[in-house]
Amino acid sequence: MPSYTANTKDMQFVLHEVLKISEAGIPGYEEMDRDFTDAVLDAAAKVSAEVLAPLNVVGDTEGCVLENGIVRTPKGFDAAFEAMKDGGWTALDCDPDFGGQGMPYLLNCAVGEMFVSANMAFNMYQGLTHGAYSAIHAHGTDEQKAKYLPKMVSCEWTGTMNLTEPHCGTDLGMMRTKAEPQADGSYKVTGQKIFISAGDHDLAENIIHLVLAKAPGGGEGTKGVSLFIVPKFLVNEDGSLGARNAVSVGKIEEKMGIHGNSTCVMNYDGATGWLLGDLHKGMRAMFTMMNEARLGVGLQGYAVAEAAYQNALAYAKDRLQGRAVTGTENPNGPADPLIVHPDIRRSLMDQKSFLEGARAFTFWGASLIDRAHKSGDDDAEGLISLMTPVIKGFLTDKGFETTVLAQQVYGGHGYIEEWGMSQFARDARITMIYEGANGVQALDLVGRKLAQDGGKHVMAFFEMIKAECKAHDADERMKPFTDALKGASKQLQSSAMFFMQSGMKNPNAALSGSYDFMHLMGHVCLGLMWTRMAAAAHAALDAGASDKAFYEGKIATGRYYMARQLPACAMHLARIESGADPVMALSVDQF
Amino acid sequence: MPSYTANTKDMQFVLHEVLKISEAGIPGYEEMDRDFTDAVLDAAAKVSAEVLAPLNVVGDTEGCVLENGIVRTPKGFDAAFEAMKDGGWTALDCDPDFGGQGMPYLLNCAVGEMFVSANMAFNMYQGLTHGAYSAIHAHGTDEQKAKYLPKMVSCEWTGTMNLTEPHCGTDLGMMRTKAEPQADGSYKVTGQKIFISAGDHDLAENIIHLVLAKAPGGGEGTKGVSLFIVPKFLVNEDGSLGARNAVSVGKIEEKMGIHGNSTCVMNYDGATGWLLGDLHKGMRAMFTMMNEARLGVGLQGYAVAEAAYQNALAYAKDRLQGRAVTGTENPNGPADPLIVHPDIRRSLMDQKSFLEGARAFTFWGASLIDRAHKSGDDDAEGLISLMTPVIKGFLTDKGFETTVLAQQVYGGHGYIEEWGMSQFARDARITMIYEGANGVQALDLVGRKLAQDGGKHVMAFFEMIKAECKAHDADERMKPFTDALKGASKQLQSSAMFFMQSGMKNPNAALSGSYDFMHLMGHVCLGLMWTRMAAAAHAALDAGASDKAFYEGKIATGRYYMARQLPACAMHLARIESGADPVMALSVDQF
Repeated sequence: MPSYTANTKDMQFVLHEVLKISEAGIPGYEEMDRDFTDAVLDAAAKVSAEVLAPLNVVGDTEGCVLENGIVRTPKGFDAAFEAMKDGGWTALDCDPDFGGQGMPYLLNCAVGEMFVSANMAFNMYQGLTHGAYSAIHAHGTDEQKAKYLPKMVSCEWTGTMNLTEPHCGTDLGMMRTKAEPQADGSYKVTGQKIFISAGDHDLAENIIHLVLAKAPGGGEGTKGVSLFIVPKFLVNEDGSLGARNAVSVGKIEEKMGIHGNSTCVMNYDGATGWLLGDLHKGMRAMFTMMNEARLGVGLQGYAVAEAAYQNALAYAKDRLQGRAVTGTENPNGPADPLIVHPDIRRSLMDQKSFLEGARAFTFWGASLIDRAHKSGDDDAEGLISLMTPVIKGFLTDKGFETTVLAQQVYGGHGYIEEWGMSQFARDARITMIYEGANGVQALDLVGRKLAQDGGKHVMAFFEMIKAECKAHDADERMKPFTDALKGASKQLQSSAMFFMQSGMKNPNAALSGSYDFMHLMGHVCLGLMWTRMAAAAHAALDAGASDKAFYEGKIATGRYYMARQLPACAMHLARIESGADPVMALSVDQF
Repeated sequence: MPSYTANTKDMQFVLHEVLKISEAGIPGYEEMDRDFTDAVLDAAAKVSAEVLAPLNVVGDTEGCVLENGIVRTPKGFDAAFEAMKDGGWTALDCDPDFGGQGMPYLLNCAVGEMFVSANMAFNMYQGLTHGAYSAIHAHGTDEQKAKYLPKMVSCEWTGTMNLTEPHCGTDLGMMRTKAEPQADGSYKVTGQKIFISAGDHDLAENIIHLVLAKAPGGGEGTKGVSLFIVPKFLVNEDGSLGARNAVSVGKIEEKMGIHGNSTCVMNYDGATGWLLGDLHKGMRAMFTMMNEARLGVGLQGYAVAEAAYQNALAYAKDRLQGRAVTGTENPNGPADPLIVHPDIRRSLMDQKSFLEGARAFTFWGASLIDRAHKSGDDDAEGLISLMTPVIKGFLTDKGFETTVLAQQVYGGHGYIEEWGMSQFARDARITMIYEGANGVQALDLVGRKLAQDGGKHVMAFFEMIKAECKAHDADERMKPFTDALKGASKQLQSSAMFFMQSGMKNPNAALSGSYDFMHLMGHVCLGLMWTRMAAAAHAALDAGASDKAFYEGKIATGRYYMARQLPACAMHLARIESGADPVMALSVDQF
């Protein structure tokens, strides 16, 4: 069975030596000193290893079962969920006014990385609740907040998000679910929603569904869509549970992975709901939470890969097979461990250099969200909006790729379910799809985010890279980083320029390159992160840090990323600059 | 449920317009005219669509079950296996002396592509038998051939290959299975073998296991390994079945995919076996079949992807979502089909351009095997030995990637088992692992094949590319192909040069780049194939071919490959030229 140990050391490095959070000037961050975050991360690491990880394979094997209209989660999930609630882990960054602990979103992400690595399917129950919490917190009336939030913060009640219908996912304008206004101010919601994660289960006494539906008078397309609160059990004035609402589970989907989470078809048959936020502004309400939700999925992408990598690394150290080409390294054994072989190293370094870069990138993104929310910093808001599709799309694509690399280290055993590597690959696969398929992320990035606010944010990003490189100008040791970053950044700028010039004439020219642009930008972001991490590591070494092996390893891993991963940028640029013609040349019949 | 229709048109194009098989001067090929191959391919297409494809999901869902020591295959597999035998499909390229039809191996591959696309797990039962047939055919005594081959050609008896043990896969020198000589010339075989595809099942009355084991006196490592024939039921002199041999199924492995094929742990408890080939030369005997077996797995890699692509294409034409950015294309519908969106096109073109190139590459490889075997052409033998790790490693990596791309087109539905796309991805994944994991293919390519016969074959490959480009020098229309191919070929040569120069000093420098080299060479091979296909398409158009849409589509698809896939070559070169340092920099403890 696979195991998982949280890499709290690397998290601390990112928080305190790269992001330097307690000096960042973000409200709430000043309390986040090393001792404090250490205590939180250690406690979360313990829960991850002892409570969540042992249930990961169980969840995959047993899955969820629909019995008489009620979904049963796998054995042990209920006790683990109680432990999460008791430990206060569901309330970490929630509003203290509703029972939350008011910590930064960033810290919630660090803890979340562990929980996802340990058991992604399990963690979704509280993850979805957090999303619904945020929506109600942002758009609910005081009454709604008082009614729902305390129970959702504690996860006594969980939440869901209901967007997709059988015939429409990305294109929500075609939505058929209807909401009819009632005399008492409530609505009757009728329709079918699919792919509803945690749609039903036995872990909470109530489930608060947030449902997108069309109310009369809103016009065509997404303009007519509103967001509704539809609880599984209606909630009485005194907060006690009332009648069962007219919402039921149609079926549980059989999925490729995340079997421990119940993915439901939900039927709303005139269910009672209440408008959340403004009428006909449901899409906007939903999108308020988008940066956070998508960052959360990007985090899942690399967090599952982190667990897979840890196991691949252990296997590579343990499994004896063949001899090192440069001479036997394990003369007393029948063979050398896999890790002596250069191609196994290549694979492990691809994994490690991506994972550490992804962690820094995600944590940085989370700190931007905190800065935007807590300081009302519009530039931070603009920057994280720009980064969000990259975090989601790039980190989940590469996360899946990394998981597959880790699985490959196991050879034949990687394909056998018993060893657990297949589950990681099957689980990771969903992250490329849900919360906006990665092609949609690329479209969002190139079709919307690049030009947002007159292109101000992407220009700021380029300036940030320039400043970073300039800061290390005098440091010869940083040249492998700054040279590679400058080159990659230039390729990214050339791509953006190509889009501007050719996109005027033919919008397909930009959109044909959108996916490559997302990846190219992802590499530039990780290149920037590695430059910052290398600088931080050099600073620590210069200051006489005792753990030389860690910092030197950090620099070497970064050099690997710059030398071996950044060359993908030129490929993406070449693909982008080939324009729309190769992509659009065939008629539909010629396929 | 997914469907599959064999692309016989494209196969015919490759056979007759690209490879021009009936003029190729290979014994047996002269009879392969268009009408003949058309008849065979059409018949095979019918069996694929009507008999095999409908059982693909069934096989995945039901899987194989071990009951009282006997493996039961999924419902319908037995009838389908009878149909395959009755149709003579198991005997296509087998030796007529033993009941085979004596057709080219190439034709067997074309038919095999269909069978794999339709139902990979099912087709493995006969595929493994074919491998065992080839081993006995090449190394068996006349008596052994007479005893086993006719029943194996007809698949009344099936075959297996037993190499892996729990503690050793790639490194077979550590093998523990023992063979003790008996007075009557037989051996007693004792040991445990794992990952035995089609190890037991209910489709045949006998199973002929080929088992690698160590017989006394052979020395250490792989030198002491011999190959043995160990039938499930002993075969009497008159050919009737005798006593049950001491071989049993330990368990069926639960795998990520190919559930329809029984992957068994096999226990040999003093089972009676007979030496196949020379004593202590078992590895050599096993490797005789290697080119064929590995080409077969490369073929699986793209064949599963072909099935996935066909379904993704149908979905992209059918599913309405969003509007084309250049203006509505389906004004009477609620939205435009997915295929109008440039990023969906990008994905489909990545798939299509790979698949058609992979088909041409594999068919060309198969024709080299025929040339080597039937004409005793050593250059062809050398060339296919060089190409084999590329066909296996590159086509399975890209095949899996392509399958994942196809799955992605479905959005959320791609993750739901019901739609069948998850199965394609799960099935395709094994091809990167078995028959030598792809890292081992890369090692074989760079560590052995490049320098084989003094590097003669790789030089011949470069000359072939040069000649191909030269042949189209005067044709302006071919420039997008020849220019790109020349550039990629030069990058491949630079890589080989780097290996020669740096590998002398440090063997890790070459091996650190082996995986990238395999991919770089794969792209060059597909670039060569596309150049040939484009030339053939132009020739057809110049000759006034009526099906202009097909040939123009072929050229456009090729241009996509050259413009959008070949840029990966420069990335691989950059990775290779970064050498061993980034890869080997960390100590084991620093990971």
